[in-house]
Amino acid sequence: MGKTRVCVVGATGFAGVEVVRLVLGHPNLELTMVTDRKEAGTPIANVYPSLAGICDLPFSLPEPAAIAQAADVAFLAVPHTASLAITPQLLGLGVTVLDLSADYRLHDPELYEQWYATPHTSPELLDKTVYGLPELNRAGLKALAARHAQGEPVLVAVPGCYPTATALAAIPAFEAGLATGDLVIADAISGVSGAGRKATARTHYCHANESVEAYGVAHHRHTPEIEQTLTQVAGRPMSVVFTPHLAPLTRGLLSTVYMSAADGVTAADVQAAYERRYADEPLVQALPAGQMPATASVVATARAQVGVALDDRRRRVIVASCAIDNLGKGAAAQAVQCANVVLGFEETTGIAQAAPLI
Amino acid sequence: MGKTRVCVVGATGFAGVEVVRLVLGHPNLELTMVTDRKEAGTPIANVYPSLAGICDLPFSLPEPAAIAQAADVAFLAVPHTASLAITPQLLGLGVTVLDLSADYRLHDPELYEQWYATPHTSPELLDKTVYGLPELNRAGLKALAARHAQGEPVLVAVPGCYPTATALAAIPAFEAGLATGDLVIADAISGVSGAGRKATARTHYCHANESVEAYGVAHHRHTPEIEQTLTQVAGRPMSVVFTPHLAPLTRGLLSTVYMSAADGVTAADVQAAYERRYADEPLVQALPAGQMPATASVVATARAQVGVALDDRRRRVIVASCAIDNLGKGAAAQAVQCANVVLGFEETTGIAQAAPLI
Amino acid sequence: MGKTRVCVVGATGFAGVEVVRLVLGHPNLELTMVTDRKEAGTPIANVYPSLAGICDLPFSLPEPAAIAQAADVAFLAVPHTASLAITPQLLGLGVTVLDLSADYRLHDPELYEQWYATPHTSPELLDKTVYGLPELNRAGLKALAARHAQGEPVLVAVPGCYPTATALAAIPAFEAGLATGDLVIADAISGVSGAGRKATARTHYCHANESVEAYGVAHHRHTPEIEQTLTQVAGRPMSVVFTPHLAPLTRGLLSTVYMSAADGVTAADVQAAYERRYADEPLVQALPAGQMPATASVVATARAQVGVALDDRRRRVIVASCAIDNLGKGAAAQAVQCANVVLGFEETTGIAQAAPLI
Amino acid sequence: MGKTRVCVVGATGFAGVEVVRLVLGHPNLELTMVTDRKEAGTPIANVYPSLAGICDLPFSLPEPAAIAQAADVAFLAVPHTASLAITPQLLGLGVTVLDLSADYRLHDPELYEQWYATPHTSPELLDKTVYGLPELNRAGLKALAARHAQGEPVLVAVPGCYPTATALAAIPAFEAGLATGDLVIADAISGVSGAGRKATARTHYCHANESVEAYGVAHHRHTPEIEQTLTQVAGRPMSVVFTPHLAPLTRGLLSTVYMSAADGVTAADVQAAYERRYADEPLVQALPAGQMPATASVVATARAQVGVALDDRRRRVIVASCAIDNLGKGAAAQAVQCANVVLGFEETTGIAQAAPLI
Repeated sequence: MGKTRVCVVGATGFAGVEVVRLVLGHPNLELTMVTDRKEAGTPIANVYPSLAGICDLPFSLPEPAAIAQAADVAFLAVPHTASLAITPQLLGLGVTVLDLSADYRLHDPELYEQWYATPHTSPELLDKTVYGLPELNRAGLKALAARHAQGEPVLVAVPGCYPTATALAAIPAFEAGLATGDLVIADAISGVSGAGRKATARTHYCHANESVEAYGVAHHRHTPEIEQTLTQVAGRPMSVVFTPHLAPLTRGLLSTVYMSAADGVTAADVQAAYERRYADEPLVQALPAGQMPATASVVATARAQVGVALDDRRRRVIVASCAIDNLGKGAAAQAVQCANVVLGFEETTGIAQAAPLI
Repeated sequence: MGKTRVCVVGATGFAGVEVVRLVLGHPNLELTMVTDRKEAGTPIANVYPSLAGICDLPFSLPEPAAIAQAADVAFLAVPHTASLAITPQLLGLGVTVLDLSADYRLHDPELYEQWYATPHTSPELLDKTVYGLPELNRAGLKALAARHAQGEPVLVAVPGCYPTATALAAIPAFEAGLATGDLVIADAISGVSGAGRKATARTHYCHANESVEAYGVAHHRHTPEIEQTLTQVAGRPMSVVFTPHLAPLTRGLLSTVYMSAADGVTAADVQAAYERRYADEPLVQALPAGQMPATASVVATARAQVGVALDDRRRRVIVASCAIDNLGKGAAAQAVQCANVVLGFEETTGIAQAAPLI
Repeated sequence: MGKTRVCVVGATGFAGVEVVRLVLGHPNLELTMVTDRKEAGTPIANVYPSLAGICDLPFSLPEPAAIAQAADVAFLAVPHTASLAITPQLLGLGVTVLDLSADYRLHDPELYEQWYATPHTSPELLDKTVYGLPELNRAGLKALAARHAQGEPVLVAVPGCYPTATALAAIPAFEAGLATGDLVIADAISGVSGAGRKATARTHYCHANESVEAYGVAHHRHTPEIEQTLTQVAGRPMSVVFTPHLAPLTRGLLSTVYMSAADGVTAADVQAAYERRYADEPLVQALPAGQMPATASVVATARAQVGVALDDRRRRVIVASCAIDNLGKGAAAQAVQCANVVLGFEETTGIAQAAPLI
Repeated sequence: MGKTRVCVVGATGFAGVEVVRLVLGHPNLELTMVTDRKEAGTPIANVYPSLAGICDLPFSLPEPAAIAQAADVAFLAVPHTASLAITPQLLGLGVTVLDLSADYRLHDPELYEQWYATPHTSPELLDKTVYGLPELNRAGLKALAARHAQGEPVLVAVPGCYPTATALAAIPAFEAGLATGDLVIADAISGVSGAGRKATARTHYCHANESVEAYGVAHHRHTPEIEQTLTQVAGRPMSVVFTPHLAPLTRGLLSTVYMSAADGVTAADVQAAYERRYADEPLVQALPAGQMPATASVVATARAQVGVALDDRRRRVIVASCAIDNLGKGAAAQAVQCANVVLGFEETTGIAQAAPLI
């Protein structure tokens, strides 16, 4: 059987080139096209010298017809609204879409319009889209796989980086009924690649290096996405107060989540719930009691590690911390994980590696 | 008038050598002695080559009698219990003590014994000790100055790094009555120098670099110190859930604090309260609305910067973030600030510099 | 056909755990044993949490008999002399050895004794050992492969990190006769992982961060190894003046090499020679004219990138710069590359990936 | 006596804001004006939050007449050619100029035109300009001081960062006659601030972090400046082969210099020459035998540290390594050092501090 042909749209961005890297190393996928509007015609290794001798594709323009001719599956690593602009056409042309943008993540198009300040131009697709957090929505992804196997192109909305880590930190506590109330505080730290490849004052080495700072306080766009997932998991309307921070590392993201503990919950209950919840997950590890995850342990991988503690000294608060790679499990590797499920491959194909950093 | 003679006890540690650096640049202080038990006899520049050509003192043993002979003031940059071991003697010999350890910070000796797992051997000194956060306890420090001017040796307990940043982030909200309830969540990030100069697996460059992680969750020793200050400021018993994180920078500390907003409080109220509270503070800046502090802006200084926001979308939470240098305002520079007050110098003498980093 | 069973000796060190990671992802190798004297009994994921859920082997003691029972091939990631202590036994027990230590790299045992201040206890093995730089000694490695295919255990001395990068930078110039004289200056920069996993003053984050420094000037132990290779390549006795530097990065090594240009040599000659020399090498890239390599382009890989320029303004000097990962092409990945040749696999099996860092 | 009034032209650049910081802390200088064409009207703390509460000057346009009205001395922290455009006018208006650009560093205007690809429009000023490396040209600077004391405005060309470190590494060997030949190899490493404040692909955190690379090989513009100084020191025409590298640190620069040793020179001769040469220099330290400098030891200071070794194993080469801060001794602090001499202050006034980094 031949390999599935893949186009990466927006392959100069950090998430895009990470999809490229993963597809190049994937036994069942074949990279046939990379697109970037500004770099059309330029060989990819001119922009990313790490690909010299490995990939000699030039960038193409992101024309849906050309993509549909070259590829069976498209990964869209583009800013919001750019996906709205081509996803309907790609699906219409028979191309299955893994969308890494925010355009199809929120089920409610009004919420999208409110947070992204632009109308949602294809709300009719939202019902058929699956929010691609396999640890939560594996059944939904498998339903897509069934449709895909019938020849139908499908659409996966790949979750954002902060929502992924925050969800993985909170899911076991809410699913097991250990967390009460309607408020979660999520305090997160991201590496600088999360700010994108554009050279700005904020991404200048001399600004980002040797410094940490909060940003987007009280209005970061990942907020409604986090609330949507928490609400799904808790079974009641949930709010989040979410504060992202920037720290001087290239890749890596940590979300530390604070949840009110239900009466009578013990530290052992919490630890057991987390271990049980992730025992069969191939890419998520609940760490032993007393251990908290370091982002270096999962950098450049599809993996997540979660640690949890109960602060029961005075007020009873569950503190859970989840480490991912913002470009890996938080973007590209999770997109490939979703693609594996949708295309009928073993879920960890091509993304099972351990973190290469020490 | 001659300069005040200074001994730095524990001058090989990171906070100790920072006191050394500040004393060397201080117009009214003269460094006459540096001590370290293991390095006795070694010139300080052999351990810290940055001092080559600047200071040629050798390390001495930390003998109280010798210290009292050489110096009028001692800065103790030592681990907890080491200060208990010599502070009473130093005071008895007429030496004023700026104690950077935790030994005299908690007013309640039982709390000390509970958190530090060792009895407090000089509880009788606690009543006379001032907790040296000048922005909160300036009157207390000035009372010490009056006693010192009479020839009486005095004792200042210099605050810990996390408690300093957390207090500065929370004080305006509580003092102005904008924050309700009895729980504060403090989520903080520190540079690696906070872990001390000892070479360990955790401080190895290849472990700390390119990684962030939480540590000491639910049981860090700065917890009761934070609660003591919050309780003082709020005027009611306060609890904190405190999570420190380690990030890959040498110096710098950020504490992001979450407080429940009282009914009717607006974002403008909050911003005004913070600006008003710090308007006359020489070393603390409330940033303009919408701006959050970066640790690089205060690195290697005695300064703090604070930003604040109100998340009033659903649940009403005040989010305030304070940036300091863990070794500067969080340790050595704050100790010098306290010494300036106690010795009758202008409060910012020798510590008014802007951050040297970009 | 079954997989070849592998033991990694010294698997707690940085090079050792990198071999572990590569073997775990290698389709033809099976990791059956990891050893470390101090950690015997401890699961490897307790020491390296990145392996949680991926590898649950505990460390064993490095006993040759046990190794021979568990494995067909041993990678020795040990300090010098530790390999001398077990390699003869392992070979005697039928185990093929990839030695990452310095013990069998120098053909001349007297040179070893002079630089490593210890007698060489198995000089009789040196004649049969191949210095495992495949780009230079591929024929020798293939001869080992033939012997190994006959059931004979063989020994590969995997090159050091600085010698690998320096050799790859110099080989084309000398092989093509473009470089004259008997002296090469090699000025190199390494990431901190090159200093090993031991926690020391030098590897403390706060020492290594935000600083560069030279070390081992005029007496680094890689000097005779570099000279041995240059002499082989030039066909005349060569000397090197070699200065390594430490820079604040975890992984990565750059060697910039200065060679006297022969009369009449042009920049085009030099560029052509480098491109030609590496045109068919799967893991080494000669960059286009005017481009110099960045270590990030090869981090965590078996790859090398080389750039070259001719300074012909006044004095005529060829300047070539080679980037590798000190733990990858400079240690573990090159060991696997050698193993692939010796075991008869395609040379890049399991080590063809692109660099995961941006 | 009043303070000398200072204008910093180009105060948004990294070197410019470092002059600002130093002038703000200088007891004899008063900052009266900062200029930047693009930011005219903006308070400086809006661009550099570290100055919040410390300096509230807004940026002005760099108009010579306005500068002459506001200031007695102007520091020009501008790109080359921008100084040519205003220096003659400033001098004509009676303003003494410390020029941090390259415009007046080369004595030979033809060399300037050749390397900077633009005509030198005020070559008549070159004879009166002093190249401001005080350790080499202190007499020249004192002659300027005498002219300045007579009311004459004077011009100092502040050296470049690489030329400063390279000169300080080479001067003792050449002055003492220990180095022979006409070629020096200078292999240098700079922090990213050396690339300037402009946000580019190269200064993006994710490009510069965790990577080292050579750049400008064989054609960096500091080359003729280095040769001019070496020729002055050696007393014969000297050439340099100069290779700068970029490393992941904000500030700091190391130049490692290779010089042929004269016959009979011993390691003790070399060490003694370096110690003797810098014994009376307040800001340059020759380190003890066997010790090499780390850039962290001098970061954010006006200081330099130099280490030296003789490689006399086969070929005899003197290897000297000099650490400076590229923005400190390599730019702003050296400019203030020159200003101190020219204005008749003690040479280290305001720039005597020890490095604040650990």
